[in-house]
Amino acid sequence: MKKMRIVVALGGNALGKNLPEQYIAVKETAKAIADLIECGHEVIITHGNGPQVGMIDSAMSLYARQDSLQSKTPLSMCVAMSQAYIGYDMQNALRREMRERSIVSPVSTVLTQVRVDRNDEAFQNPSKPIGKFMSKEEADFASKKYGHIFIEDSAKGYRRVVPSPKPQEIIELAVIRSLVEDGNVVVCCGGGGIPVYANGEHLRGVSAVIDKDYASALLAKELDADMFVILTAVEKVAINYREENEQYLDSITAMQAKEYMNQGFFQKGSMYEKVDACTQFVESKKGRVALITELNKAKDGLLGLTGTRIER
Amino acid sequence: MKKMRIVVALGGNALGKNLPEQYIAVKETAKAIADLIECGHEVIITHGNGPQVGMIDSAMSLYARQDSLQSKTPLSMCVAMSQAYIGYDMQNALRREMRERSIVSPVSTVLTQVRVDRNDEAFQNPSKPIGKFMSKEEADFASKKYGHIFIEDSAKGYRRVVPSPKPQEIIELAVIRSLVEDGNVVVCCGGGGIPVYANGEHLRGVSAVIDKDYASALLAKELDADMFVILTAVEKVAINYREENEQYLDSITAMQAKEYMNQGFFQKGSMYEKVDACTQFVESKKGRVALITELNKAKDGLLGLTGTRIER
Repeated sequence: MKKMRIVVALGGNALGKNLPEQYIAVKETAKAIADLIECGHEVIITHGNGPQVGMIDSAMSLYARQDSLQSKTPLSMCVAMSQAYIGYDMQNALRREMRERSIVSPVSTVLTQVRVDRNDEAFQNPSKPIGKFMSKEEADFASKKYGHIFIEDSAKGYRRVVPSPKPQEIIELAVIRSLVEDGNVVVCCGGGGIPVYANGEHLRGVSAVIDKDYASALLAKELDADMFVILTAVEKVAINYREENEQYLDSITAMQAKEYMNQGFFQKGSMYEKVDACTQFVESKKGRVALITELNKAKDGLLGLTGTRIER
Repeated sequence: MKKMRIVVALGGNALGKNLPEQYIAVKETAKAIADLIECGHEVIITHGNGPQVGMIDSAMSLYARQDSLQSKTPLSMCVAMSQAYIGYDMQNALRREMRERSIVSPVSTVLTQVRVDRNDEAFQNPSKPIGKFMSKEEADFASKKYGHIFIEDSAKGYRRVVPSPKPQEIIELAVIRSLVEDGNVVVCCGGGGIPVYANGEHLRGVSAVIDKDYASALLAKELDADMFVILTAVEKVAINYREENEQYLDSITAMQAKEYMNQGFFQKGSMYEKVDACTQFVESKKGRVALITELNKAKDGLLGLTGTRIER
């Protein structure tokens, strides 16, 4: 197989709801990633942070209420902290897995800021769920106290939603590129990146969580990756999902993907953004391929044995 | 002036007690660092995290008590989060200051693990204060509930102390070196590094906070730095500090420094470790120089106009 540069994006939900779960999840992830590195591919790892950033935000808010010296920690800072929270465990698990296979490439986590447009319409329409499900009482409290916005999720309860503006620029791109070209395995763009907007020469944090699939697709384009892989909870993308005529997709063109998106086959906040991000990546240059599959199917997916492949 | 490679270590206390204070502190710091970069020096930035890691640890503990899904977050993970908490603001302030001076080097924060010896005697004798001062009641509660250990600080109250083992190895050294050699300004070894010990191929986090001055001196040695600068709250080191015969030191040899240390001139947990770390650095190779001075005196200190210089 040709040696490729691959950006692998992992779901925040796949990383578990707490540290013991995360510890197990990163071990599994490390195996999948090490499989790709063992084949000689260059791998760049990104990840979501929905549950984690919500948890950190809640913890920091709770503490601010008890300590008069502390003001509320901005969501952008909570995203930064979630990059460390996940990156530390991830790089450690991967380092161990690689060493056990006698692969010696260094692994590192780079704090990543991603610039968004202050006028992105997402700020008028918060849609990205973060944190845990809450009762109506808890949601009402946080709504009154902090002005948080909630959506009701089928049977599971209330979940906070925040704006999810489109990524425009990866601020630490040059650093990430230089590490990748030096043979490092890099964990970056965690949680879609720390959302900032440009105010003159200054980057100001903004209360939002960028979609990790869009940020990762942008990273893959900018790094001139050959392949963009989204590892998630399903082995293949389906149309008519969970209906009688459900159909799993093996390989589709970007054109087909867009048609399915337009026809409303993919749920927003779930599969829609993944397919959309993949489509943007493969359309950006000839030869670029995207793959959506399950975490532990990464290697098989690359071999063309499973997953949903999106090509130009 | 000769272009030098300089490791600059900043005190965690100098970074403020909360985010608004940190925001102001990093702006000042950015000016001091940009002054050095403007002179053509290569700069690597490290920082302490005493107040910040204590605050994050308290926040995570508080949250764990309210959410049955969460277990207590290990102190090593809190150190990781403090690297993001400080690094994000620091790199952003520095990027802005540099751009305003038309310096375009990229700035980045690298999560850094530092290996310690599991049998370090520090684990038997916690000595590093973290977090805020507490009342006797608060300290008694945390002592019973978590087994935390406290020291009583003159008039200010009770402060938690944790083990502060000696740094043995900077795990991400190769990554840091490669970034520095590519012309990047790197923020790393935050809070003395995430403390880990080796368990076979696995690095396991350990409940401790490594002294940032010792970790930074080790980093300076490993990066073959020309100079190691500790920026702190005082302009010069003094003997007979705050006594009638107080005497500020302009320039001392490593030998003199060791004599002063042996004679008990420097308080442990404060100036002792700084002087000791500097001495270790200058003794490690001919030509290496260390400097201890105040944050806003960094440039003057380098020019030999102020600060305490330690040479071989």
